[in-house]
Amino acid sequence: MEKIIFQIINLIGEKEKILFPEILENLADYYPLKEVVKTLNKLAKDKLITNEDSYLILMEKGKAVYLKNKTSLKAKLCEYCLGKRVVISEEFKPILEKFSVLVQERPAPIVEYIQGYMKEEDVIRRVIFMHSYNDLKDKDIIIIGDDDLLSIALALTKLPKRIVVLDIDDRIVNFLKEISRKENLNVEVWKYNIKEPFPKKLRRKFDLFSCEPLETYSGLKLFIGRGINALKKNGIGYFGLTIQEASYPKWRYVQQLILKANGVITDVIKGFSSYPVNSYSSFNCEEVLLKRLKLNLTYSQSDIAWYKSTMVRFEILGEPKNLIAPDKKYPLVFKDEEEDITIP
Amino acid sequence: MEKIIFQIINLIGEKEKILFPEILENLADYYPLKEVVKTLNKLAKDKLITNEDSYLILMEKGKAVYLKNKTSLKAKLCEYCLGKRVVISEEFKPILEKFSVLVQERPAPIVEYIQGYMKEEDVIRRVIFMHSYNDLKDKDIIIIGDDDLLSIALALTKLPKRIVVLDIDDRIVNFLKEISRKENLNVEVWKYNIKEPFPKKLRRKFDLFSCEPLETYSGLKLFIGRGINALKKNGIGYFGLTIQEASYPKWRYVQQLILKANGVITDVIKGFSSYPVNSYSSFNCEEVLLKRLKLNLTYSQSDIAWYKSTMVRFEILGEPKNLIAPDKKYPLVFKDEEEDITIP
Repeated sequence: MEKIIFQIINLIGEKEKILFPEILENLADYYPLKEVVKTLNKLAKDKLITNEDSYLILMEKGKAVYLKNKTSLKAKLCEYCLGKRVVISEEFKPILEKFSVLVQERPAPIVEYIQGYMKEEDVIRRVIFMHSYNDLKDKDIIIIGDDDLLSIALALTKLPKRIVVLDIDDRIVNFLKEISRKENLNVEVWKYNIKEPFPKKLRRKFDLFSCEPLETYSGLKLFIGRGINALKKNGIGYFGLTIQEASYPKWRYVQQLILKANGVITDVIKGFSSYPVNSYSSFNCEEVLLKRLKLNLTYSQSDIAWYKSTMVRFEILGEPKNLIAPDKKYPLVFKDEEEDITIP
Repeated sequence: MEKIIFQIINLIGEKEKILFPEILENLADYYPLKEVVKTLNKLAKDKLITNEDSYLILMEKGKAVYLKNKTSLKAKLCEYCLGKRVVISEEFKPILEKFSVLVQERPAPIVEYIQGYMKEEDVIRRVIFMHSYNDLKDKDIIIIGDDDLLSIALALTKLPKRIVVLDIDDRIVNFLKEISRKENLNVEVWKYNIKEPFPKKLRRKFDLFSCEPLETYSGLKLFIGRGINALKKNGIGYFGLTIQEASYPKWRYVQQLILKANGVITDVIKGFSSYPVNSYSSFNCEEVLLKRLKLNLTYSQSDIAWYKSTMVRFEILGEPKNLIAPDKKYPLVFKDEEEDITIP
């Protein structure tokens, strides 16, 4: 039996009834959303599953498959760090609290830019993870696209020497400038469109870059490529990558880019960042997906953060090799019609 | 200041005095052993550190550096899973117990083969991690070199359909055969030298391989290469890689191999496996390292499992591309004189 079918039947069987976002959350680190949707439609068509309001349940045929294949040995991720390797220690709790207050008035995600911010705890976990590598203290850091407001979290630690944010969105630029001024944080904000030549003053100036790329081939190349444009010798990169909307051929492409830039992948941690997509005020990803399902599921109202990304860290061994020319303009495709299926 | 210097000074400063294996354990996921040794020697020569019996301490100059640079924000890994993402759940505890009993009479590591087994808990964690991916149930699995006795742990779960072990060492081959017979486990054991052509009957027959490669360039190529020889379409690979004796240029080489084989790296989890090297009855790695130190440190007697490896998982996208010809013999270098510094 195909793994994904086995996993879905198992999930429903164990819980008897399950919300759509619970399925999504459980499969987030393993399968693209388009495959989950396709498989659910197939299972419904084959009369293995059906629904009751917003719950998925097994039909007789599905129950038989479940009972035949179930295994009593469950393998769960660590329930303390949720498989993220780091926990928010006492020392970082005041930083999380302060960060959560500061970001309350954040701009809502805009569909046009394919925005969507991660949970505040996961932003802090990213910071802690970086610090566990000693990647922050006295370092020059650049963030390419910052709807997550990572720059604020970094600045609150007082560890980095310099923090520069590039963002295309005036609202983010202004929001960061205002917070930075009010709170006296050392965040420099530049309005920048990733398609444009990379600012001369920022080339080869940073120890570390962080970004959450657009997950089209051109998006991945431009985000990672501009990051490389910014790095010094032995520089370090952090980025997030979903499987939900960037299936493994794209991962392989990104990994080729990293090696080509003279880099080595040091960490790939699945499910590191969660996105509270059901609580965005500007659009609702679950409702967008429901339209693709051939089931009569109603919207779950759940606040399960079912959208997740993997955190990747890499190091450049010696001099970085540019993937794209810093002084050239490049075309950028915002949306992959095949894989980006959470955007209205 | 160089990161490694900062980290060592910080470690000693925080604890006031520290055992050599504690330093090694704390830096295991970040630096090669040769660099740790070199840096300790430099710090001793520059009169920043010295020792008291088996403890390292800061000298006046070192204390000044510590006080100037220390930061109150500590970033620790999750103390429940130790950053390994999975914990040993109740359901797997009987398997760990049984496994620990069965392996008690294991053959001691042999220097000639550069053996060294990982902690039993970490073998079980590897199994749990594999199961969390649904990589075990009804699968055909091959283990290339099994001084860790992973095959026994896998067989105890009753999940895989077939488990084949290849090993060069008669003692391991016989030990596994005996346990498998006595306990009625489905482990097939073949005596095999990785340099030799890959057995015809095992080519393209497995869903998954696992190995802990020799960490020379030829060792990495042969272990991963034979694994690829064994895999079916969409096959999966698991292997361990240290930084302690395989610095990042080797990691980059391995990553290039994976991509070349049509693979994608799905997980890189640092510090996943620990090796209780100070308790091996056949040789003592710490004593070997102490001889390279220009300090009068005495042997620590500690049982800190300071030798660690990163767990890497990859998937083949479609058909695997062979890295080495299955019917050819290849040369193999056992030891990297530069990096393998724990072997007498």
